[in-house]
Amino acid sequence: MFIADIRIKLKKGVADPEGKNTMKALELLGFYEVVAVDTSKFFSVKLDTQDESEARTQVEKMCQNLLANPVINEYSYDIRTVEGA
Amino acid sequence: MFIADIRIKLKKGVADPEGKNTMKALELLGFYEVVAVDTSKFFSVKLDTQDESEARTQVEKMCQNLLANPVINEYSYDIRTVEGA
Repeated sequence: MFIADIRIKLKKGVADPEGKNTMKALELLGFYEVVAVDTSKFFSVKLDTQDESEARTQVEKMCQNLLANPVINEYSYDIRTVEGA
Repeated sequence: MFIADIRIKLKKGVADPEGKNTMKALELLGFYEVVAVDTSKFFSVKLDTQDESEARTQVEKMCQNLLANPVINEYSYDIRTVEGA
């Protein structure tokens, strides 16, 4: 069993209104040290396979075909082993 | 300057419909090895301070006051130094 921790970020230059609004809210709450907030999405995908390179191939395909929008997103992931249950 | 990478997860037992739907979509696309998908939210907050323990205190407060909903969320974060710009 593997778990892939996949992070889907916005590409540089793509507007991040949620980040902007979060920053504004933090300022209103008195967090004056905050100079930037970027948001991203995180998926933990559990895979029932014994083969790490197979898991890696699958995760790469998932990102390309479903999880990330190639126009606005870039993705990165870590794959870790977990005890099967 | 510090960047805090903050991850806001759903507490165990809280429904994650986005994760469930993502899993269904992955199955429909032929990813039969997937046995679970959990989603979470990620904030990268850049702080203009020189004091790491101050940064840590601020981030803890941000999570409690704005970023996480204590009823359904748990949070974790890493703080790393970046070259000021």
